Amino acid sequence: MIQAFYSKNRLETFSDGIFAIIVTLLVLEIKVPHLNQTDSTRELFTALLALLPKFVSWVISFFTVCVIWVNHHRLFKVFNEIDHGLFWWNACLLLWVSFVPFPTALMGDYPQNVLAVSFYGVVLGLMGMSFFGMRIHACKVDALLTSTTDKEAFKTGTFFTLIFGTFLYFGGSALAWVHPFVAFAIYLAIPVYYMIPHASLEI
Amino acid sequence: MIQAFYSKNRLETFSDGIFAIIVTLLVLEIKVPHLNQTDSTRELFTALLALLPKFVSWVISFFTVCVIWVNHHRLFKVFNEIDHGLFWWNACLLLWVSFVPFPTALMGDYPQNVLAVSFYGVVLGLMGMSFFGMRIHACKVDALLTSTTDKEAFKTGTFFTLIFGTFLYFGGSALAWVHPFVAFAIYLAIPVYYMIPHASLEI
Amino acid sequence: MIQAFYSKNRLETFSDGIFAIIVTLLVLEIKVPHLNQTDSTRELFTALLALLPKFVSWVISFFTVCVIWVNHHRLFKVFNEIDHGLFWWNACLLLWVSFVPFPTALMGDYPQNVLAVSFYGVVLGLMGMSFFGMRIHACKVDALLTSTTDKEAFKTGTFFTLIFGTFLYFGGSALAWVHPFVAFAIYLAIPVYYMIPHASLEI
Amino acid sequence: MIQAFYSKNRLETFSDGIFAIIVTLLVLEIKVPHLNQTDSTRELFTALLALLPKFVSWVISFFTVCVIWVNHHRLFKVFNEIDHGLFWWNACLLLWVSFVPFPTALMGDYPQNVLAVSFYGVVLGLMGMSFFGMRIHACKVDALLTSTTDKEAFKTGTFFTLIFGTFLYFGGSALAWVHPFVAFAIYLAIPVYYMIPHASLEI
Repeated sequence: MIQAFYSKNRLETFSDGIFAIIVTLLVLEIKVPHLNQTDSTRELFTALLALLPKFVSWVISFFTVCVIWVNHHRLFKVFNEIDHGLFWWNACLLLWVSFVPFPTALMGDYPQNVLAVSFYGVVLGLMGMSFFGMRIHACKVDALLTSTTDKEAFKTGTFFTLIFGTFLYFGGSALAWVHPFVAFAIYLAIPVYYMIPHASLEI
Repeated sequence: MIQAFYSKNRLETFSDGIFAIIVTLLVLEIKVPHLNQTDSTRELFTALLALLPKFVSWVISFFTVCVIWVNHHRLFKVFNEIDHGLFWWNACLLLWVSFVPFPTALMGDYPQNVLAVSFYGVVLGLMGMSFFGMRIHACKVDALLTSTTDKEAFKTGTFFTLIFGTFLYFGGSALAWVHPFVAFAIYLAIPVYYMIPHASLEI
Repeated sequence: MIQAFYSKNRLETFSDGIFAIIVTLLVLEIKVPHLNQTDSTRELFTALLALLPKFVSWVISFFTVCVIWVNHHRLFKVFNEIDHGLFWWNACLLLWVSFVPFPTALMGDYPQNVLAVSFYGVVLGLMGMSFFGMRIHACKVDALLTSTTDKEAFKTGTFFTLIFGTFLYFGGSALAWVHPFVAFAIYLAIPVYYMIPHASLEI
Repeated sequence: MIQAFYSKNRLETFSDGIFAIIVTLLVLEIKVPHLNQTDSTRELFTALLALLPKFVSWVISFFTVCVIWVNHHRLFKVFNEIDHGLFWWNACLLLWVSFVPFPTALMGDYPQNVLAVSFYGVVLGLMGMSFFGMRIHACKVDALLTSTTDKEAFKTGTFFTLIFGTFLYFGGSALAWVHPFVAFAIYLAIPVYYMIPHASLEI
């Protein structure tokens, strides 16, 4: 059997670095508005108001990446070792996470463009599928989970990941075509759901 | 009782990553000036002089983020465990910290625009409120503080956080409407106050 | 004998930081397209389609940096200590890795420009040569490798590094002059080769 | 006596994060050139050649930051504890390090502008003064150095820091007014000097 094991610690540091950078890069897409009268508070107020969709878009993405960090953190707590498969599923996850600033800026620039709003959901749905892939892979290879992990609960959690991390985002993406605000509401509801403490978040 | 505990170590790394990135991103807002005569030292000197408000704005924000790092570091030293509440209060703190480059650039671009100067104080006041929220939450949940922590001193420190981290910034924000320089002075005085060693900084 | 030893741990953190940042900066080169009709899904679709070479270019570079991380990680596992030579070979590696966003953006902007496609291979070939230099240096100084390392296998691995990390990239770079797509295929094939699990990746 | 001690480990992580980010941000200042004929290799070649001063400027700064990392790493190895003074001297060092992308881009854009070339030396001279300040502070407070540190050698090293980290940069800055190339040579010679292994680098 061929297997290359990775240092869990260095992979966590690498992933945490990427999460930290993405969270901070998101705000770079919000540019300082150009003012004709540099000392006019009225003009600046209007300009800041026009940036509102960008602010909303940024806050949604910020808390979404925090939720991804939380899920990543919980998942890695039950991992015993990192094999080739887990590494590359994690790399796929990081690919989509590192892409988040683009759909965030797109949605912030064109909040009334259905495709822009829909595109955001597709990217985050694919991110969710990477979580699902990592978990499915861990279900298949016995040595990957710590001995204290409840495997049945882990499988149930994997199923929930599919629903909350993938179906909901693809659903939001589809419902953007009914009205962008429906999609906005779903994208916002997902991190809010995770921020409220309840039992099902345990694994 | 439902509680999800987080690795204090990974959360510190994640937060430190964000602080380090923000501190370095601040300078990206200062663009190389365009010169008509590329070898004219006179033109470059004038152009650099015109960037002075940006430099001042950057230095204030740089040391302000350092002070936030110091306070975050001191606070986490007395934390025993990170629960759901502390995690999300910390996420709110990081949200405002990661937003700092925007009000910094705004204030640097329009130092005579009262709203721009006032906006900076509002953002940092909200940042201070997140610190206050984290501390109030830690006061309420007994298990979060290490056994060696003096709880009365911690409560007094929480009260000082409210004054220095929130009231002073909101105050500076309000006084910007009297004169922007009053706000500038307050924003600069806060990190300077922390840089001078004295006893009340202990907790 | 003059030798300055470095903390392996801090050097890993420093290198991991750079890998994490490069992986995330890559996507910053993909700018939100400008739309004339902000709510036209058709126009946005065409604009996103025009970004396709940039997306391909980004995905190739993303997984390439992941492969570099994997190789770096495996190499450092067999290092016992970091001396002056290893530090500066590692610095050369990081120089080329940190340069990757530039050739990536160049290739993404001008996928039909032979020089742009060729340039990408030269940069990654030089990156591969730094890996080779690090390994050759470690072969020469006995104390650098851990006692459990199979030195013959390490030498064979060094030879493979030269082939896969340097010759293939320089080869791809040369073949770009036949047709850019040949080079694209080689640049893509290298990370894909590493993603498929097989025995020769062990050291 | 009032003293607030900091976690050396967290401060190293924070500083390493900043070094890693600065090293990678440097390359962001090199923009992909605009081509009129997107498939003309001749036009791209000329455009890349025109970027040469930027490449040189970037390579100098990259290796300079590596040297700063090495010096920082060596200095922190002899520190026992981090007090208020060391923290803020370190913050000053990080302020100047995080500023490096600006003078680098300035020198890369205007290599024939004496002020631009001179400005680079001033910033790095101030960075060197922060190193000097940190060392002088450590000389004064006995508890800060580890018990195995040779204090006489540390004082000699402090003196060398002043010469190589401050006087040479201020000297280069002054000699830019004779000819920018003299300054370029000095700025390049400093990291090259550190890359060659010799005994005086030990402390």
